[in-house]
Amino acid sequence: MKIRVIVPVITKEFEAEALREYSAPARPDTEISVVSIDRGPASIESSYDEALAVPDVVAKIVQAEKDGVSAVIVDCMADPGVEAAREVVSIPVVGPAEVSYHVAAMLGHKFSVITILDTLAPVIDHNVAKAGLTARLASIRAVNIPVLKLDDRKALLNALVEQSVKAVREDGAHVIMFGCTGMVGLSQAVEHRMRREGISGVPVIDPPVLAVKIAEALAEVGLTHSKRTYPAPPAKEIVGY
Amino acid sequence: MKIRVIVPVITKEFEAEALREYSAPARPDTEISVVSIDRGPASIESSYDEALAVPDVVAKIVQAEKDGVSAVIVDCMADPGVEAAREVVSIPVVGPAEVSYHVAAMLGHKFSVITILDTLAPVIDHNVAKAGLTARLASIRAVNIPVLKLDDRKALLNALVEQSVKAVREDGAHVIMFGCTGMVGLSQAVEHRMRREGISGVPVIDPPVLAVKIAEALAEVGLTHSKRTYPAPPAKEIVGY
Amino acid sequence: MKIRVIVPVITKEFEAEALREYSAPARPDTEISVVSIDRGPASIESSYDEALAVPDVVAKIVQAEKDGVSAVIVDCMADPGVEAAREVVSIPVVGPAEVSYHVAAMLGHKFSVITILDTLAPVIDHNVAKAGLTARLASIRAVNIPVLKLDDRKALLNALVEQSVKAVREDGAHVIMFGCTGMVGLSQAVEHRMRREGISGVPVIDPPVLAVKIAEALAEVGLTHSKRTYPAPPAKEIVGY
Amino acid sequence: MKIRVIVPVITKEFEAEALREYSAPARPDTEISVVSIDRGPASIESSYDEALAVPDVVAKIVQAEKDGVSAVIVDCMADPGVEAAREVVSIPVVGPAEVSYHVAAMLGHKFSVITILDTLAPVIDHNVAKAGLTARLASIRAVNIPVLKLDDRKALLNALVEQSVKAVREDGAHVIMFGCTGMVGLSQAVEHRMRREGISGVPVIDPPVLAVKIAEALAEVGLTHSKRTYPAPPAKEIVGY
Amino acid sequence: MKIRVIVPVITKEFEAEALREYSAPARPDTEISVVSIDRGPASIESSYDEALAVPDVVAKIVQAEKDGVSAVIVDCMADPGVEAAREVVSIPVVGPAEVSYHVAAMLGHKFSVITILDTLAPVIDHNVAKAGLTARLASIRAVNIPVLKLDDRKALLNALVEQSVKAVREDGAHVIMFGCTGMVGLSQAVEHRMRREGISGVPVIDPPVLAVKIAEALAEVGLTHSKRTYPAPPAKEIVGY
Amino acid sequence: MKIRVIVPVITKEFEAEALREYSAPARPDTEISVVSIDRGPASIESSYDEALAVPDVVAKIVQAEKDGVSAVIVDCMADPGVEAAREVVSIPVVGPAEVSYHVAAMLGHKFSVITILDTLAPVIDHNVAKAGLTARLASIRAVNIPVLKLDDRKALLNALVEQSVKAVREDGAHVIMFGCTGMVGLSQAVEHRMRREGISGVPVIDPPVLAVKIAEALAEVGLTHSKRTYPAPPAKEIVGY
Repeated sequence: MKIRVIVPVITKEFEAEALREYSAPARPDTEISVVSIDRGPASIESSYDEALAVPDVVAKIVQAEKDGVSAVIVDCMADPGVEAAREVVSIPVVGPAEVSYHVAAMLGHKFSVITILDTLAPVIDHNVAKAGLTARLASIRAVNIPVLKLDDRKALLNALVEQSVKAVREDGAHVIMFGCTGMVGLSQAVEHRMRREGISGVPVIDPPVLAVKIAEALAEVGLTHSKRTYPAPPAKEIVGY
Repeated sequence: MKIRVIVPVITKEFEAEALREYSAPARPDTEISVVSIDRGPASIESSYDEALAVPDVVAKIVQAEKDGVSAVIVDCMADPGVEAAREVVSIPVVGPAEVSYHVAAMLGHKFSVITILDTLAPVIDHNVAKAGLTARLASIRAVNIPVLKLDDRKALLNALVEQSVKAVREDGAHVIMFGCTGMVGLSQAVEHRMRREGISGVPVIDPPVLAVKIAEALAEVGLTHSKRTYPAPPAKEIVGY
Repeated sequence: MKIRVIVPVITKEFEAEALREYSAPARPDTEISVVSIDRGPASIESSYDEALAVPDVVAKIVQAEKDGVSAVIVDCMADPGVEAAREVVSIPVVGPAEVSYHVAAMLGHKFSVITILDTLAPVIDHNVAKAGLTARLASIRAVNIPVLKLDDRKALLNALVEQSVKAVREDGAHVIMFGCTGMVGLSQAVEHRMRREGISGVPVIDPPVLAVKIAEALAEVGLTHSKRTYPAPPAKEIVGY
Repeated sequence: MKIRVIVPVITKEFEAEALREYSAPARPDTEISVVSIDRGPASIESSYDEALAVPDVVAKIVQAEKDGVSAVIVDCMADPGVEAAREVVSIPVVGPAEVSYHVAAMLGHKFSVITILDTLAPVIDHNVAKAGLTARLASIRAVNIPVLKLDDRKALLNALVEQSVKAVREDGAHVIMFGCTGMVGLSQAVEHRMRREGISGVPVIDPPVLAVKIAEALAEVGLTHSKRTYPAPPAKEIVGY
Repeated sequence: MKIRVIVPVITKEFEAEALREYSAPARPDTEISVVSIDRGPASIESSYDEALAVPDVVAKIVQAEKDGVSAVIVDCMADPGVEAAREVVSIPVVGPAEVSYHVAAMLGHKFSVITILDTLAPVIDHNVAKAGLTARLASIRAVNIPVLKLDDRKALLNALVEQSVKAVREDGAHVIMFGCTGMVGLSQAVEHRMRREGISGVPVIDPPVLAVKIAEALAEVGLTHSKRTYPAPPAKEIVGY
Repeated sequence: MKIRVIVPVITKEFEAEALREYSAPARPDTEISVVSIDRGPASIESSYDEALAVPDVVAKIVQAEKDGVSAVIVDCMADPGVEAAREVVSIPVVGPAEVSYHVAAMLGHKFSVITILDTLAPVIDHNVAKAGLTARLASIRAVNIPVLKLDDRKALLNALVEQSVKAVREDGAHVIMFGCTGMVGLSQAVEHRMRREGISGVPVIDPPVLAVKIAEALAEVGLTHSKRTYPAPPAKEIVGY
């Protein structure tokens, strides 16, 4: 099975890391390919950034379907462009955030999302509500490290552990979920460090990992998004794209 | 006071009509100006269309603020780009749908939205939920006439009356709200025709009209959108816009 | 346009201040008149007070319609009598609380209400729920100063700033809304003082100001409350009123 | 135990019937007394009627407490004045509607309310929401017979059976609840008639009956309404009452 | 009237205490009998414990109906087996938790549940949601004393008072409700101690007491659970029970 | 990977079919094993049936963990025993209903559940609410064929198609989900037949199929249910199990 990961920013250097991180949880017979966009912002930290990324994200997803992949994943927790893309392709378009909210709800009573910046809380709050899971959300917390500085993995891990412990102790979280795909690969380290602080049995969800597994599952059983929800747009003149 | 209306499609011919329709409810000392976008689709009937319209809608709103207008209205019930734009300007950015949902809720117990196509129901349902008003929504009905054929005003009026009457009689609507800005100007005719069918006292909301009044009101009292909800995006490299 | 403000207490001295405060945000061509009630309590701080005020509030609203005004505002955040009055008149009857909850929801993700007494929190909580906006309410806070002592404006301002800052910092409020019409006129001062404490971009809503603008807007475009929600009461014998 | 029933209308002839109907379900050692109000409307069919009834309802409840009764019931499904009265007395003030909504929710998955007029649906909808039980409400149906014509018991019974059967068959009701205290005494006849139409095992709630039992229960175990929710109003000047 | 209390654990010693505690609030003409189960756990502190208790709880309720009792109460706040039992008997099967959630909602704006162990919070949260009353729940707090050590009444009382005071002061509770039937008999002591700490007018609900009163009330007026919600199971082979 | 399917009824003949149906969607390297229970009912069509099945379901899941399987699936849409079992094992315990509700919500705006009997609607309604997805549920429909007669596959298919078409046309369903594991294997036939009736692009979810994929996914990435939500029960005396 072939799965295409769309990195919805213009920073080409992220591709190699995305390929490595998304390939890790994939099955041996799943082939991951990665493309980033050519037009848009260097990172997504606002609705404005998202708006500028979406047109090329959708174009890259259309191309992915033409390339014969079985499913697409958009490598960003804002799930930019996934709804628009579902209207113009027939393969599953998986948003790591959407699938992780639902799996978090399967695994325990309440979950907390640990995101990068406090300013992203309204968007997450809104997306959890859209998924129908507001009653299952314990809290949204932030490490307050900008996306483009997430490469200091030690500082990031420390901040993730600190906020995860607070989410469990102060907010009643039963499940932890990372709120940025740039945190990928740290879930086991956070679980380990939480145990050292006396908190065990709390699953830590790494959304890109789940996105791969759900994409594989949907493609394998032949399920895709409803065309009643995402009907093909009527044909019309379009300028500039 | 100057208010700028953004027509979020590339069809320049809509500008004259928009100028006329948005000027009608404006106060004498309010000056309406209209611009359409240069890049994007010919009409907005899907999330895909919306995605392609948004970047230039935001650009046009940024320009509007530079031009010294007091408020901006985006002439589309999908409120495309209003959230992204609020992050990059300081003037009120008014979406006709959002303000109309809230005013409908002020005027009566439950409201119905009469939109153009059944396929738009999920988006409206979602936006009403986002506004927090799901419990106040009686129904979503459609005249099932595409946007680009809304110029047959007689057929449109008949269809609006038929669906409005059904919304009141079958769905328990107490307030009717148009679901497309292309229906502008027909609210009084629909109220009149409903009275002839024995239904009186049901307000009919024409969203562009309310958008003008709310834009005037916010600008006049100096209220604008919260920068906590819509913080300015961090500076970063952007390609293609 | 003529707008009548009903002061729902027997304290005639409030009329002059109400006239001044409600005239300030009105347009030049809007004429505000004020009447207080003849039967009822000296202030409204409980459901009991409200119950005793309502019959004469409604009578005064009926008189206002006979006097030819275009809209009525009830000068109290409990919106006493607005629903009963909507059944017996045809002009818009505006409650400052109801319109402010909806406008607060338009301006940002979550809002906090700063009211006078902690004991009023259940009523506000209930009215926000009635408006459908519970998910948008960050918190209800109180300055804990009784209505009849609100004339110490300096103490009131200090308390409003203290609670507003806490609402933003501790409760995640993105918009602040005053919870008593007796706080009218202080929104800009609170915004200014919050900026000095490092909190900018948080709109502060002064409900009487919005009530005037919404009353003007509704009257101007010919919208009023639904007679399906507020049908005229069947004729019957009434004693004592 | 003494329980006082307040008939919130000026129609003295209702007192004898209320005494009979409220005494029927009472225990032998419970003494029911009935008073109607002196100021107010002849029936309650609107918020306006309710507003005019409330001041004297509250006065009659204050008097009831002075007379040494253990609990008070207000004989109307709008529960007029119960909240205001709870602020000024310490005995339980029972609203037949509120207790019946909760007991209906205890007895089955979804309940329907059969009221007198379609125009009352918004108020019932709102009160069910206030009780927190919207998700448990199957439907609101009306016999469409005005209060003052409810004395044609045969027509009323037929209409109640017709609507109850429809509520079960078309709306999925598992429990039926009368929506007007003037329907008192007909629950067993409706259950009997529904069985003849093939619908058995559906409880039919007669709110005055439950109001008596809950009033007895609360008084017996010494529970009354929270003074945190219903604090005593601050002392102040009151004119006209 | 005869009421049977089912103690859903194998610990026979609890029967005498249950008989005493459930008889106290019963009317003179109500005869309480108590049986514990023969198969199952020694206490119920988890879903696992509950699962093992339910089959014999249901069997004991079937026997109770054969014995001619008018209603059954299951002496546990998890309401184990009440739904299954309602399918196979026709008498009311009362769960102390379910009735107490509803009565708490009748008595005040928000209630807190004080349970035994923090680990029970998800179950309570879920059951309150099932009752429809999430919006009325202020908090769930725990004394953190295991069921089988609840016989140190002094320590239990102290812990209940401490948590009740915090629920009122920190969580905004207006009504307190015990979360374990093993706390029965302490409501007046908690009210008394809270008053000494300056908190008066907050009702404290002892669920077994309310269960008796609601069971008496339902049986007396002939109401029982809906057979639409709890239909009799189709006949089939069953092994091992 | 080894996955154990628990058939929660005593009917051994179901095992072979379950093995076949659960093996079909499994990956080549997944080994499915099936056990049915020794004590309990012949089918699950009520809460009573479920109550009698649960103790042995849990015992079989404990044994499965001892046998070294990586995950367990309970072959019933009531998800009987999954919560109790999660407390006593550490491997994922997957309920086909729970995972299907969440995946249905991922795939489209609203989903309908087609179950076997109308009497099961309250349980499904409750479980969807527990998952947090009430707002996403279009309708619950039934083929009204008892579990033990589901072996007439042609009649079952016809009934499934009829109800699915109605769910889409009348209830606004965008996704269809089977409500009984006994319907397994018919999703593609239903999709095919719906297309012949003019309804394409509506995903049809076969819960056992998804249960296998989610069980595989969770086991593969090392996620299991939270021990905060499902803590191990305190040790205690247990009789009869």
